[in-house]
Amino acid sequence: MNTTTVRVGFLGCGNVGGPLVELIHEQHDAIAARTGIDLQITAIAVRDASRDRGLPVAQEIFTEDSAAMVASPDVDVVVEVVGGVDPLLQLLLDAMGNGKSVVTANKELMAAHGAQLYAAAADAGVDILFEAAVAAAIPLIRPLRESMAGEHLTRVMGIVNGTTNYILSQMTEVGASYDDALAEAQELGYAEPDPTADVEGYDARSKAAIIATIAFGAVVQVDDVYCEGISGITAADIALAGRMGHVIKLLAIAQRVEEGEGTQLAVKVYPAMLPSSHPLATVRGSFNAVFVEGSAMGEAMFYGRGAGGRPTASALLGDLIDAAGNHIRGAATPVGTLSAATIVPIANHQSAFYLNIEVTDAPGVLAAVAGVFGKHAVSIRSMEQEGLGDEARLIFITHAAREQDVDLTLAELAEMDSVRQVGAKIRVVGES
Amino acid sequence: MNTTTVRVGFLGCGNVGGPLVELIHEQHDAIAARTGIDLQITAIAVRDASRDRGLPVAQEIFTEDSAAMVASPDVDVVVEVVGGVDPLLQLLLDAMGNGKSVVTANKELMAAHGAQLYAAAADAGVDILFEAAVAAAIPLIRPLRESMAGEHLTRVMGIVNGTTNYILSQMTEVGASYDDALAEAQELGYAEPDPTADVEGYDARSKAAIIATIAFGAVVQVDDVYCEGISGITAADIALAGRMGHVIKLLAIAQRVEEGEGTQLAVKVYPAMLPSSHPLATVRGSFNAVFVEGSAMGEAMFYGRGAGGRPTASALLGDLIDAAGNHIRGAATPVGTLSAATIVPIANHQSAFYLNIEVTDAPGVLAAVAGVFGKHAVSIRSMEQEGLGDEARLIFITHAAREQDVDLTLAELAEMDSVRQVGAKIRVVGES
Repeated sequence: MNTTTVRVGFLGCGNVGGPLVELIHEQHDAIAARTGIDLQITAIAVRDASRDRGLPVAQEIFTEDSAAMVASPDVDVVVEVVGGVDPLLQLLLDAMGNGKSVVTANKELMAAHGAQLYAAAADAGVDILFEAAVAAAIPLIRPLRESMAGEHLTRVMGIVNGTTNYILSQMTEVGASYDDALAEAQELGYAEPDPTADVEGYDARSKAAIIATIAFGAVVQVDDVYCEGISGITAADIALAGRMGHVIKLLAIAQRVEEGEGTQLAVKVYPAMLPSSHPLATVRGSFNAVFVEGSAMGEAMFYGRGAGGRPTASALLGDLIDAAGNHIRGAATPVGTLSAATIVPIANHQSAFYLNIEVTDAPGVLAAVAGVFGKHAVSIRSMEQEGLGDEARLIFITHAAREQDVDLTLAELAEMDSVRQVGAKIRVVGES
Repeated sequence: MNTTTVRVGFLGCGNVGGPLVELIHEQHDAIAARTGIDLQITAIAVRDASRDRGLPVAQEIFTEDSAAMVASPDVDVVVEVVGGVDPLLQLLLDAMGNGKSVVTANKELMAAHGAQLYAAAADAGVDILFEAAVAAAIPLIRPLRESMAGEHLTRVMGIVNGTTNYILSQMTEVGASYDDALAEAQELGYAEPDPTADVEGYDARSKAAIIATIAFGAVVQVDDVYCEGISGITAADIALAGRMGHVIKLLAIAQRVEEGEGTQLAVKVYPAMLPSSHPLATVRGSFNAVFVEGSAMGEAMFYGRGAGGRPTASALLGDLIDAAGNHIRGAATPVGTLSAATIVPIANHQSAFYLNIEVTDAPGVLAAVAGVFGKHAVSIRSMEQEGLGDEARLIFITHAAREQDVDLTLAELAEMDSVRQVGAKIRVVGES
C-alpha cells in the first residue's frame, strides 16, 4: 500500500506524551498498512530539550520553542500533552490558525475554552479532537458526537474520576474510613499528595462541562456545573446505603430538563446513591464509566480505563490517526453548531433524597417531622427509624423533589427541639 | 444556519424502517440546527406501495421498483432495512456504483459479503456504514474502527444476541428450565416462533464475523466462525456454575492468537462460563454488551440495547447523518485496508474448561481419571466430587488447554469402565 507521511509535533512529553511516542513507534507499521498513514514525529516541544527521555526518537527533534513548533511548516498535526490553560490556549489557536489540526487530552482547557477552540477549528477548516480529555481510553466523545447524532439524549451520567471511585469502592468493599481509603489511594499513586482537585470534584466538573457540551450541542462551561465532592461522605453513610441496596458513587450528570423554551440543562457533580443493580454501581476501583440515556436508543454504557499513560495515549492515537487522515484528504471532522443553553440553577434540580435526621425518641416526633416535609411539598417514599433514645434517628428516602424544597425542609427541621441534628443529605439517582 | 438538503431513499420499511422514518421526522429540525443537514426522504421501495403505513411521509414516495430507486438521481443516500442477502447485494453494489452511500443494519449481508462491499465503497468513493448491524444501538463499529485505530487489540468478546441472553438470564435468576425460558421469551416476542437462528448461535456468528473484520482489519467471513448454541445448556449446568461463582453466557469471541507469522485469529460463538465479577456477567435480560481488550487501552466495555425498532433506527440515523455530511463535503469515511488472516481451527483454540464426568464411586477412580488428563497434557486447576455411589461425579476446571487435547481426554474417559458418562464440556473465559 502507498503511504502518505503526516508530520506530528508534540507540545509536552511527560506521563502521557512519553507513552504516546512509544505507542506511535510500536504501532507505526500496523497503522501504515491499514490506513496508508505514515506517522512521523518531527518536533517535540519541552522545557528541557537536552534531557534524554529514552524514547525511540532522535534527540534533535526536541525543542524548547513551542511558538516556533506550532508555526513550523514541518508539522501537520499538533498533539498537546502539557496540561494547564496558559499559555496553551494561545499556542493551540496559533497552531489552528496555521492550518494544523490539534489533538489534546486537556480537560481544563476544553471545559474553559471549548467553544472558542471549536470556532477556531471551524474557521481554519482543521480538527480539534479531544477524546482523551474525558474518561481517557473510553470512546465517548466520538460516539456522542457521531453515533448518537440523531438521538434525543435525555441524560448522560458518569463515573469520570478514578481516584474518587477507588476511594468510595474501598470504603464500600472493605469498610475503610474516608481518611484511610484516601491514604491508600495516595500510596498507590491513584491520588495526588494534594488530592483536592479529585476529592472535591473539580476534575469531574471539567469533564461534566465537556460531556454536556457534546451530548447536548450546547455551550456549557465549568462555572455552569454545580459541584460537591466526596470528602463529607462517611463510612456510616456507605454502610447505610448498602443496607438499603445502594452504593455511593461520585457522579457527573448532564441532564435535559423538559420545561419552558429552548434547551434547559441541569449539570452537576455530586456523590449520589445508586441502586446496586444499576450498571454504574458495578464499576469498581479506578475504572470509569458513562451511562447515556436517549429517547430512541434507550440506555447505553461505556466502561474502561479513565486514566493512565498508555490508556490516555491510546485515545490520543485514535484521534491522531483521524486528524492525520483528514489532513491527507483535506477534510475536517464537522464540528456542528453549538446552541446557547439555559443552565438550571441547583435550587431547581429534582432528585430523590436520602436524609438522615437525628431526633429525640418521643411520641409525636415522627408526625411533627413528617409535617415539615409536607409543608414544603417534599413527598416521602420510605421512612425507617434506627436506634432508640439518644441514638434515635429517622432515615428518609423522598420521592423526586426540588433541591430548594428539601433545603427549606432541613432548615426548618434543624430548628425543632425534637431534632438533635440534621445529618447526611445524599441524592438518590438511577431509579426514576 | 444554512442547511443543505440530502435526499434519502429507503429499501424496505418494516420493523426498523418505520421507526427510522418517524425518528427522522422527529429529529429533523434538531439535526438541521446542529449539523446543517436537511434530511429529506424522497423514495421508499417496498413490496406493496399502496399500503398506508401511517408514517409522516407522502404516500407518493412509496415505490415497488427497488432497481429504479437505487439508480434515481433524486436519491443521495440509500438506507437498507430489508434484511436478507438476495437480491440485496446487487442492489447495494448498484447504489454505490451510482455514487450513493449506503447505510445498513444487515448483519447477514455484511458477514457474508463485507469485503466485497467495502471494496465497492472504496472504488466509488462513497460510504458503507453498518453500525446498526451489530448490537444495534450500542456504538461499536465506529469506536473499533476510529477511536481504537491505533490500538493493538487482543480480544473482543461480546453478548450480541438478546434472545439467548434473556433465556440464560431467566435460567440463572429464577431457575427456569431451558424449555420454559424459551417459551417465555417467545411469548414476550424476544424469540421467534422458530428460534433456531438465535439459540443455535447463527445470529451471533454473523456478528462475530463483522466484529472480527473491524477489530483486526482482516477478512473474516461467517464460515470462519466456529459456532455452538445454547440448546444443550441445562438448569443443572447453570446451577453448578453459580455455585462456583460463575454465570453462563453465549459469547461471540474474536481473538488474536500470537503464534507464527501474520495475523492469526480465533473466532467463535459458544456458551461459556464467566466469573460473576466480570463486567459481562452483569449484563442481564435482552441487553447486549461487548468487552474489548487492547495492549495499551486495557479493558473497555460497551453496553446497551442490541435490538428493537427504535434503538436500531437510532444507530442507523447516526450513520445516515455521517453519510449525509460526507455527501455534502464530497468525502467518505476511510475504509482502511483489510489484510488476509489465518483462521485458527477450533481444535487449536485454547481456553479453560469446566468438565462434568459421572463416575462409579470406587477407590482409585480419581487417580485413573486424572491420569487420562495428564496423558493428554490437560492440566487440572480444581476438582470436586459431588454425590456418592451411583450419583458420584467429578467436576473439573482445567487450566488453559487445547480443544483437541480436551476432546481426546473426554473420548478416552468415555471408554473407561469406571466412567458412567461424560457430561457437560463448557469453556471458562474471562479469568486469564
